[in-house]
This record gives sequence, structure tokens and C-alpha cells, in this order.
Amino acid sequence: MSGKHILALSGGVGGAKLAAGLSAVMAPDDLTLVVNTGDDFEHLGLTICPDVDSVTYALAGLNDTVRGWGVKDETWQTMAMLRALGEEGWFNLGDRDMGMHIARSWRLRAGETLSEVTARLTRELGIGHAVVPMSDDPVRTQVLTDAGWTDFQRWFVGNQCVDPVLDVRFEGVPGARPSPCLAKTLARDDLAAVIICPSNPFLSVDPILALDGVWDALAARRVPVIAVSPLVGGTAVKGPLAKMLAERGHGVSNEAIARHYQDHWGDLLDHLLIDEADEADVSCLQARGLRVTMTKTMMREAADRERLAKEVLAIAGI
Amino acid sequence: MSGKHILALSGGVGGAKLAAGLSAVMAPDDLTLVVNTGDDFEHLGLTICPDVDSVTYALAGLNDTVRGWGVKDETWQTMAMLRALGEEGWFNLGDRDMGMHIARSWRLRAGETLSEVTARLTRELGIGHAVVPMSDDPVRTQVLTDAGWTDFQRWFVGNQCVDPVLDVRFEGVPGARPSPCLAKTLARDDLAAVIICPSNPFLSVDPILALDGVWDALAARRVPVIAVSPLVGGTAVKGPLAKMLAERGHGVSNEAIARHYQDHWGDLLDHLLIDEADEADVSCLQARGLRVTMTKTMMREAADRERLAKEVLAIAGI
Repeated sequence: MSGKHILALSGGVGGAKLAAGLSAVMAPDDLTLVVNTGDDFEHLGLTICPDVDSVTYALAGLNDTVRGWGVKDETWQTMAMLRALGEEGWFNLGDRDMGMHIARSWRLRAGETLSEVTARLTRELGIGHAVVPMSDDPVRTQVLTDAGWTDFQRWFVGNQCVDPVLDVRFEGVPGARPSPCLAKTLARDDLAAVIICPSNPFLSVDPILALDGVWDALAARRVPVIAVSPLVGGTAVKGPLAKMLAERGHGVSNEAIARHYQDHWGDLLDHLLIDEADEADVSCLQARGLRVTMTKTMMREAADRERLAKEVLAIAGI
Repeated sequence: MSGKHILALSGGVGGAKLAAGLSAVMAPDDLTLVVNTGDDFEHLGLTICPDVDSVTYALAGLNDTVRGWGVKDETWQTMAMLRALGEEGWFNLGDRDMGMHIARSWRLRAGETLSEVTARLTRELGIGHAVVPMSDDPVRTQVLTDAGWTDFQRWFVGNQCVDPVLDVRFEGVPGARPSPCLAKTLARDDLAAVIICPSNPFLSVDPILALDGVWDALAARRVPVIAVSPLVGGTAVKGPLAKMLAERGHGVSNEAIARHYQDHWGDLLDHLLIDEADEADVSCLQARGLRVTMTKTMMREAADRERLAKEVLAIAGI
């Protein structure tokens, strides 16, 4: 393999951990981190990008590892005032986090693209690696429940994922183009592999692959697509993935993950890293034509993230 | 005097104290507090209304009496994050205060008028009295210094009032109309008096009087206009008033205040309440045809505010 550039696709918390691991072991020039923006939403006049911020905070070392989201050492005074003023309080925003949303929102309104704003704000936080929104066009994930189509965050945070998800759609797709940096990375001569971070396939990875031309560009290339499974021990480390898989009646297993990718994206996926606890999944994954590597995929500390990053890179031939 | 309704005109901190005193001793139906919006500005995508907020926080009991501005028990995390993100940090905004700006800004952008937003947010904070922006049209005070015309807050906060002020102008005037509630109050049959709170004439009162039709409406009415001087003991309690008076070469005195009102607004002002420490000013004020009352105008505590409010109301015949 001649190339040495890695394109990593990430959602929020779980993906952000591997993104942080990759950034810790790779030179900035060799890595492009492309982040889902389907979870983004407009709230209280602010444009909130939960996955981009999760990756940003993880790379800047600002993420709260105990709570599992948002900024560490966070306070909650702005939101308390907003509630006192009668504003909606269902989506909690910390004070430091609010600074990010204010900065992003006013710059978007001033005419910068989400890519430009994200590049600026990550650089200001000392991040040398490219954190790239998947698209500068708005893509808004919605879930279908018995109550009808619902904006993602209303279901994810407002509904606490309680209502079963019957379907998922991405408002803005087709039509949303990959961001300039994603498009450029897909066309790089030295692209060695695509890494899909341990993120929810339905909610975090599908939106990226569904952007205009992204799947075509990936299918036309002969670089491996390597995913790290978001399941550990037959369940999701965090978030609604296990519940969504169970509701689809496919069982909560890596086979259901693989089936989803194959049903929707053909033979895009080449290699799946799964946790040692899920050894039982290996044979059916191999029967589906996938290469499988077993390792420890839980990332509790920096050392875990960096070890897993190195293992993924070794599979990519880096 | 048959009427019993009071229209009070106020700027920020000093005015807000008397506004709080008036609201403590008057029924909500009997008082309309109209607040200067010439100090308002757009910053980081937010519409900030310092004087409206000073009055609001004072009436809600949320004002910081030690620092003299903003919200009590304030924290500063959002601003710290904004600075870390490379955003301008010269105008400090507390976390709770930020909630106010976020709520106001998104509602303005959603199409509510400043009057509507202010009515909503003050009501949510439990304020029964009408806190009314002077205008729903943008008026932006600018000061002329050797550096040219400068937006008010850039000079007031960014420059810390260091550069001498050669002139003051109100962008948007003429053209800016009084807010609906101000216009309605000026036309009330039961209007008993207009009270000018102890605020900076140049920066806080002139913008209100300069709105389309306000001076005409006041001049056409036969109700007394009673001002409480913002000077105590020959200097301003707070803010750049004393410096501005000195730079104009008129001396820092109540006579200079009276002269300003008479030069700009004819015989609008009927009665001036001054502090006992400024007894020396009485004769020249009387020589200018003003009625003068001496009292204690410093308002350190609620009791001071309420006593002064009652004294002003007694002069108004209430």
C-alpha cells in the first residue's frame, strides 16, 4: 500500500475516543477526521453540533470523561437563567459548551461555512489535526416513531430514546454535498484506508455515507474500509444502538451490524474489529465475507485509545 | 392633579435604583418604566441591552450590588470559553446574564419586537411592573473622540471612557419611533408626571427624548417633568458623567445638567431633586427657573430607594 493518509469517519462519544487515539498516534497531515452532522440542530437561536463538539473536546482534552459528554469542569448557570426566563430546558447546555455554540452560531450567521468555523475553533483550542464536518449543507436526522417523524435530538434527549424507532431518515439528503475537505480527502492519491470509528451505524455513519457522491467515491476506490464495532459483549457501550438493533428484530450482535452495512452499502465494509467478548460472532461475520479481528475495543483511558488506534492502523498497513 | 400614572425614564445602574424604588412603592398599573436602548449593541451574534437588563435585574432582585452591574452570584465560564476560542473578550458577559442575551436574541430573530421580548422575559422573572424599551427601532449611541465616531460600548467598556468625548449622536434618530407602550403612556389621560431617574443626561435620557415625537408629546402636555440629579457632592456616583461634564468645560455641577436640558429640550424640565451635598447649586438652578428640592439622593439600600421614590412621587402630587 503506497498511501499513508487515513480518513476516519466518526459520530459522537465512542467515535470521538478512537478519533482521539488516532490523533495521538498520527501526524496531523496524515489524518482527516470527518464527523457526522446529522445530529446537529438549531435551539435557542444556536447551531449545536453534538458530534463535532464531542470529537473537538476529546482531541482538546476538554471532554468530561465521567459524565461521558460535554466539557469537563462544567457549570450550568446560563441554562438555569434560560429556564428562569421560561425558555425550553429539555436540552441541557453547560456554560463552557455554550461558548462553543455562541462562537459557532455567530460566525455561521456572519457567512462562514461550518467547515471554516470548525477549522477556526479547533485550531484556537490547539488541535492540529483536521476535524471536518461531513457537510456544510444542513443534514438533519429524523426518527420515525409511533408519534410520527421526530427531530433526532427531540427523540434522543427529549424522549430519552424511549419510543421505538421504526425508521430513520436524513432531511437534506439527497442534495447535501460532502464538505470540501471530505471531498478532497476521498480523492487523495495517498489515501490508504477509511476507518469507521465505533459509532452507531444508523445514526452516525449512514448520514456520512448517504451524502451525495460519498458512497460512489468510496466504492470506486481500492482502499480498505475498516470498521471498529460499537458493540462490546453483545451490547452498545453507550447510546441507543442496542435498543435500535433489538427493535429491528435482528438481535444485538455484530452480525446485525454487518448485515446493515451490507444491505445498505453493498460490499463497502472490508474488515470489522470486534471485541474479544464477542468471539461468537466471528464465524458468521466471516461467512458474510468480512475479515474479522478480535481485540479489546473498550477505551477507558488514553492508553486504550492509542493501542486500538495502532491496531487499526496496522490493519490498514500503516 | 387628577392623574395618578407615572412615566419614569431610566438609563442603567443609577436610574435602575430609583426604578426599583418606584416599583416597590407603586402598583404595577400606575407606573411605566421606559428604559434607554441607545447603549444596546450586537456582539457575538447577541443583542445586548445593558440598561433594560440593569432595570430588569434591579426589579427582580437579581442585580449585583457589590460589582454594581450584572447579575449577582455570577460566574464567567461561557466568556472564558469564548476567549479560548479566540473570540473578542473585551465585553465581559456573565453566565447568567448570557442566558438573558440568548433568550432575547433568538426571540428577536424569530420576529418578536424588543417590547414583546422584554415584556415576556420580565414577566417570567416575576416582575409585575411594565419595563419598556424606549423604542423597538434600533438606536445606537456613538461618541465622537479624536479617533472619530465610536460605538458607545467600544468607548464605554473597550476604551474605559478614557478618550474625551467631543460629541454624542444617536444612530437611527430621527426615524426611531417610541415603543408602543411609551407612545400609549405619553397619551394617557391619567398621566400625572414624568420622572427622569438619576441617569446620564447625554447618554441615557437624551436618546429617549430624541425619539420621533417624544419631546413634542411631552411639551404639549401639562404634567410636571421631575428629574433626580445623577450628581452627588459635585460628582457622578458612577459612570462617565462627571468626566463628560468636565470635558465640556461647564464644570461638574447641577447647573451644567440644567443647562444641558434647557439648551437641548427648552423648558421641558420643571423640577430637579439634588443631593443635600450640592446645596451650593440651588440658587443658580432657581435663577434658571427650576424648582429645586434637596434631599438624600444616594441609594445604597432598598430603604433609600423607596424613600427617594416616595419623595419624588410627593412632588408629583401622588
